[in-house]
Amino acid sequence: MAVSSGKSVLIYGGKGALGSALVDFFKAKDFWVGNIDFLTNDNANHNVILEKGLSFLEQAEAVTNGVPEGTQLDAILCVAGGWAGGNLESPDFLKSAQLMLEQSLWSSYIAASLAPKFLKENGTLVLTGAQPALKSTPGMIGYGVAKAAVHQLTKSIGSKKGGLPKGGKAYAILPVTLDTPMNRKWMKHDDSWTPLEDVAKILFNWISQQDTPPSGSLVQLITKDGKTETVIE
Amino acid sequence: MAVSSGKSVLIYGGKGALGSALVDFFKAKDFWVGNIDFLTNDNANHNVILEKGLSFLEQAEAVTNGVPEGTQLDAILCVAGGWAGGNLESPDFLKSAQLMLEQSLWSSYIAASLAPKFLKENGTLVLTGAQPALKSTPGMIGYGVAKAAVHQLTKSIGSKKGGLPKGGKAYAILPVTLDTPMNRKWMKHDDSWTPLEDVAKILFNWISQQDTPPSGSLVQLITKDGKTETVIE
Repeated sequence: MAVSSGKSVLIYGGKGALGSALVDFFKAKDFWVGNIDFLTNDNANHNVILEKGLSFLEQAEAVTNGVPEGTQLDAILCVAGGWAGGNLESPDFLKSAQLMLEQSLWSSYIAASLAPKFLKENGTLVLTGAQPALKSTPGMIGYGVAKAAVHQLTKSIGSKKGGLPKGGKAYAILPVTLDTPMNRKWMKHDDSWTPLEDVAKILFNWISQQDTPPSGSLVQLITKDGKTETVIE
Repeated sequence: MAVSSGKSVLIYGGKGALGSALVDFFKAKDFWVGNIDFLTNDNANHNVILEKGLSFLEQAEAVTNGVPEGTQLDAILCVAGGWAGGNLESPDFLKSAQLMLEQSLWSSYIAASLAPKFLKENGTLVLTGAQPALKSTPGMIGYGVAKAAVHQLTKSIGSKKGGLPKGGKAYAILPVTLDTPMNRKWMKHDDSWTPLEDVAKILFNWISQQDTPPSGSLVQLITKDGKTETVIE
């Protein structure tokens, strides 16, 4: 685990679309990069591979044990997640609810739980919320509920007494639609989609202590005419 | 299952402090009253007894199967819940997170899932949020996250396309501190605590289609000088 720049980042969901982009971006910036995911990312310096079917606490234990003892991180980025639609009448209402909690909230909680042990002072914790979950989400209830929970988690952990290491900051990024292959497969692309590299640059700035919002902020990523701006909720 | 007034209510958590008060109140108003809880409430007309240790989907199935076929309810009230403190540094951080999700969010989700099958047109679904969870909750992160999730669930289900039966309404009550024996045991009582009978009267009004807030509302219960007012967030 050679740390060349002395900077290091751990990415929960580092084999997903956004996660892979972040792994590549931070590697190119000479960071040590760890990946936590169900699949190995060969570009990462270290992989923590998750088993399917674990309970919340089992997954947490597996992750904690998978991070090398003594690791001190500049940032923990949780970009794991998923999407499911459906309202109360959907036959899969509760199944989707459960899946969304597992994919978005469990991962966020577990990423956060690593901070006291593995995050440096003045380190950065980033979780992934969703801009639409700032309002009601009747067409995708399970998704909105899980994301609203992530928002509350971020606001609370990011508060003065939330328990982060000294000087630590927590943010949630709230994308509208990310420009991923999966989204291109299912939806008509338009120029309000946020390029993954824009997300990477914003996170890199924060980790470099540039343009940092107040800790606990929910940061909407609003893309317009090919330009992405951060809007603090 | 004799239904004397023709009115009926199902109470999730009907053996807890608030739940028991509601069972008694609605019985006195001549409602048919069902209770879903880990313990029987002898004052209820019907009890659905939960087993400990079930998964979310198992509990949902047990509850659905426990409600008599053909039941048509004026209201479903979920007042199950619990409380745990602790921030990110708490050794029980993730255990509390899990417990709070099980006690507050699972019960709310399962109560909501009953609505398409068992709630009458124009019926009322009430979930229990928490006034403090409208802001960050660093000293009780798991609690605040679960309650924020309940808020989002309420807003979404209560929306026009949330999936409730025709004319159905969903609300969350957001108490500050309820006047329960448990709270009296652990905290110094003051006159901002909300009497359980005040909650019962407010819910009774809503079910009677009186003073109904817009569906999807988060309704803070604010008690001052012995009087409880509803404040829509």
